[in-house]
Order: sequence, then C-alpha cells, then structure tokens
Amino acid sequence: MLHVDRIADLRAACERARAAGQRVGVVPTMGYLHDGHRSLIRAARGDTGFVVVTIFVNPLQFGANEDLDRYPRDLEGDLALCSAEGVDCVFAPSVAEMYPRPPATTVHVAGLTSDLCGAARPTHFDGVTTVVTKLFAIAGPCAAYFGRKDAQQLAVVTRLVDDLDLPVEIIGCPIVREGDGLAMSSRNAYLSPADRAAAPTLYRGLVRAVELIQAGERDPDQVTVSVRDAVAAEPRFTLEYAELRDAHDLAPAAALDGSLLLAVAAHIGGTRLIDNVHLRVDGDDVVADLGVRRDVKGAPAPA
Amino acid sequence: MLHVDRIADLRAACERARAAGQRVGVVPTMGYLHDGHRSLIRAARGDTGFVVVTIFVNPLQFGANEDLDRYPRDLEGDLALCSAEGVDCVFAPSVAEMYPRPPATTVHVAGLTSDLCGAARPTHFDGVTTVVTKLFAIAGPCAAYFGRKDAQQLAVVTRLVDDLDLPVEIIGCPIVREGDGLAMSSRNAYLSPADRAAAPTLYRGLVRAVELIQAGERDPDQVTVSVRDAVAAEPRFTLEYAELRDAHDLAPAAALDGSLLLAVAAHIGGTRLIDNVHLRVDGDDVVADLGVRRDVKGAPAPA
Repeated sequence: MLHVDRIADLRAACERARAAGQRVGVVPTMGYLHDGHRSLIRAARGDTGFVVVTIFVNPLQFGANEDLDRYPRDLEGDLALCSAEGVDCVFAPSVAEMYPRPPATTVHVAGLTSDLCGAARPTHFDGVTTVVTKLFAIAGPCAAYFGRKDAQQLAVVTRLVDDLDLPVEIIGCPIVREGDGLAMSSRNAYLSPADRAAAPTLYRGLVRAVELIQAGERDPDQVTVSVRDAVAAEPRFTLEYAELRDAHDLAPAAALDGSLLLAVAAHIGGTRLIDNVHLRVDGDDVVADLGVRRDVKGAPAPA
Repeated sequence: MLHVDRIADLRAACERARAAGQRVGVVPTMGYLHDGHRSLIRAARGDTGFVVVTIFVNPLQFGANEDLDRYPRDLEGDLALCSAEGVDCVFAPSVAEMYPRPPATTVHVAGLTSDLCGAARPTHFDGVTTVVTKLFAIAGPCAAYFGRKDAQQLAVVTRLVDDLDLPVEIIGCPIVREGDGLAMSSRNAYLSPADRAAAPTLYRGLVRAVELIQAGERDPDQVTVSVRDAVAAEPRFTLEYAELRDAHDLAPAAALDGSLLLAVAAHIGGTRLIDNVHLRVDGDDVVADLGVRRDVKGAPAPA
C-alpha cells in the first residue's frame, strides 16, 4: 500500500493507475476510520482497480466554534485498516500541503446547502465542496464513494459534480449502524457511556416513523412530529431538526410520495449527531432504506 | 478540424489526444475572433499537440444591464479563422448544453475580484471562474491560454488553478494592438467611427505614463494621474478607473518597484474598454510590456 502526503505524489499515482488501464476509486474521509468507511472502501474495491483513501481533517468545513481541534485522529489505526482492506493508496496530507496559503477560492452550491445541516453550520458545505473539488482535481477521473449518513453532503456533492461536469461518478453507500442501531460516526467517540446508551434514540425515532408510514400515515407533519416526539422523550437530547424532504433537491416534501429523505439532527452531551432514512413511497408501497447493521458477530446485516 | 457542440464529444476528443501522447492546449473565448485570439491559438499551436478553441458567450459573466444580447457573434468566421490556424477542435456549445438547468454551483475567488473591473461588474468574475472551472473539467489536463489585456481575469484564473490544484498550466499572452495602438477586443465592433478614432487615447495614456516612469517619476499617484489626465483630455471618454497595482495580487502599489500592472478602464459611446501595461521596475531599470502591434502589413511587431 502506497502512503503519500504530497499532492504531486497522489496525482502521479492516479495517473499511473489510469495509464495501466485501472479505474480509480476515491474514498474521501477525515480519518478515524470505522466500519462505515470500511464499507465505502469495500464498495470502491468492488468497482475499481486502484482504491485511494484520502484522510484530511479539513479546517474549511469546521465553524469557528466547532470541534476542529478535538476531532479524533488515529493515522496509525487508519493505515492498518486501509492495508487490511486492500487499499492501494492512502493520501494523508498536512494542512500546509493542502492550503500553503489561505485559499482565496471557494466552491459554493446554492440552495441545497442553505438549510438542514447548513442552517446550523453556515460555512460547512462550502468547506466540503471546496476541498472535494480540489481532491477530485488531484485524483483525476474517478468514482468517489460517500456514505448516505451524510445525506445532504451526498446531494450537494452530486450537484457539484453535475454542475461543473467534473469527471467523477458519485456513489452513495448505505449507512452502517452499530448493533443497537446507532449510525456509525467518528464523532461517536465523544459520547460518554450514558450518552452512548441513549444515542440510538435517533435511530429508533426513524424506525417508529417508518412503521407509522407503513401502517398508512400519509401526513408529512405527523411523520416528523413522531420523530420529534421520540427525540423529546430522551432528555439527554436537544433536537436541531427533524425534516421530511425530497431526496434529490432536499425541498420540503408536500406529500408522502416519491423518493424522500427523513432526516434528523440532535445534540447530546455537546456532540452533534445526525441520522436519516431514505424512503420510496408509491401508493401503499413503502420501501425504507435504513442501511445495514453490524450484528453481534461484526458482519453487516440489513438494519 | 473537429467541430463539436456536446460536452461529451469535447471530453472524448481530449481524452483521445492524450491517449495518443499529445498535450492538450485550450483557448477559451467568447467568439468573434480577432488577431488577439489568433495569437493565443498560435501560442497553443507552438506548445501543444491538440489545440482546442472554445467559443461560448457565457451568460453567467454578464451583469443584468450588460451587453449579453448584443455581444457580437460570427461562428462561421470563427470556424474559418480556427481552420486556417490549424486548430484541431472547436467546441461551440449552446447555453442549454452548458447549463441544462440554472447552475447551483459557483466558483468564487475572493480578494482579487473585489475591485478594478470587479467593482463595476460585481458578478462578472464568478461567471468567469465558474465557466472556466467547468471547461477545464471537461477538457482535462491541459495548458490554457489567456490574453493579458484581461489582466485581472488572468490573475484570477491563475489563482483559481493554484488554489484548486486544477491540472492546468495557465499561460498569459501579450496584448495584440491595432496599428494605432488600440488593444484588440471583440467589443471594438461596437465603436462608431468617431469613437473608434478616439479609442487609442487609452493606449496613448499608458505610453505617456511609461515615458514618465522611464524619465524617473517614482510617485505612483503621479503615474495614475497622468493616465487620468490623458483620458480626461478626450471628452468622448468617461474614466472608470486608472490604477497602479502589484501584478500578482493586484494590491495597490505603494511604490514604483517590482512587478506592476498599470490598468485603465473607461467608457466611450456606451462601450466599456480596458487596457493595461505590465511594468517591471528595478531601481533605474524600467521594462514595460505594452504587447505587440499589428503593423500596416498586418504582421505583429513589438508595440
């Protein structure tokens, strides 16, 4: 496994792979890799011949009062996971390598970024789209793998690639959950034992909402109210939002019909957690994608 | 010569050229090609094996009250010029091909775009950087040729490519002037005969300022005042700005030293014209780059 920290070295490695006829697969991460990232790597491994994992805690996507300084890091563990998963190249640059001077250039996606997580984190998505554009420019033509837990990020990056005609295929991958349903996240490491025990409340609220819909509920407000009630029932949580949206343009869903995203964000013990379920509703037919759940033996199974 | 209007066809043509070992050279234009564009094509022809000229009057870079609707167009003449110059591929897409829906994504370069032409045209450079990022994403790794008449645009695009690590080498080419010194521009077509006769005032103002500096003037204010006075002496002109700036970051020049840009913008008969001279000042040593001038026989000569 190649481990590089220079932009020029990543570019050269990807060019060599393409020259050898391989497709490049990119998994952009902020490190502290978990089974969610592992599933992205495996998807890339299945589709492409040269798998790159980027590890970069991107300062641009953190707000002034957010957790940039304490964001968890474990490069040694990340390299071991990548090596075990057959990754071809890890790119783990320094901030000085990525931003030798404060960047003047910002890539902004309007509309999709203005609410949901963008309301509480107004500079976050500009940081994501700017660094992702840069990573794609370095990697060159590729497939890129993003988790559906960050559903808004996935919608924003998909739009970015489409608008700018970047030579990149964006692939969304299922949420990976702990045995008790908590969506995997590097930020779960912040949780105290008591908060960790309460954290699956978000997942259970989403499941209850899905059951309501499967039982015939078709009022969007009743669905979001049921998620809000579930979060409110756990006093450790403070709700940020619970919203039902069109899955593609993230516009508020006027009806329970079509491809939808039911998304929730809440704070617990100073940690911000997000979760969601993708729904496809066609009359009485309801398909909910809650992702995959790690069973007690550690192998993913449908959630 | 290949003439394509689809994004996918341009991408495929550039990929074929690179696969055949050729370097791609891109000359982004808004069409209505003149000898300035011709000089860019010749520079690309000299450096690269596959020369692409893009012709697209980009709506994003025109303000609401600007000349988008009346911007001059002559695709047939442009194709003839490109063919005569040995261009390999002309890409002339429709607005619908470039923007099948209103783009949500904007690429913004802060600082460099905020004054000079950016003051009067506050959305202009976002339009330029967004379309240029898209054209580069389609063309792939390449050298790209821009005229120094649009000195601020050249500085902005250079910064964009550096910040986002786009696989593009930006090459600035000398201003090409008419026999009487007027910098070539598609917008010169708007000028009435009387305005056309007065238009070289900008060039002559720049030459007078250069002569002042060569005679020993070292006060930046005196230099810009001399340009302002020259423009004011021609009542057909209304000055927009005359500024002396650092050539790289476009910051106001505190002293007549180093690499400098003396730039002017003015309006005549409803047409906005810009011009500039690049200066390198090292003590008593003054080198001024006024570009090249077409002599009476039509061959470029140093201005």
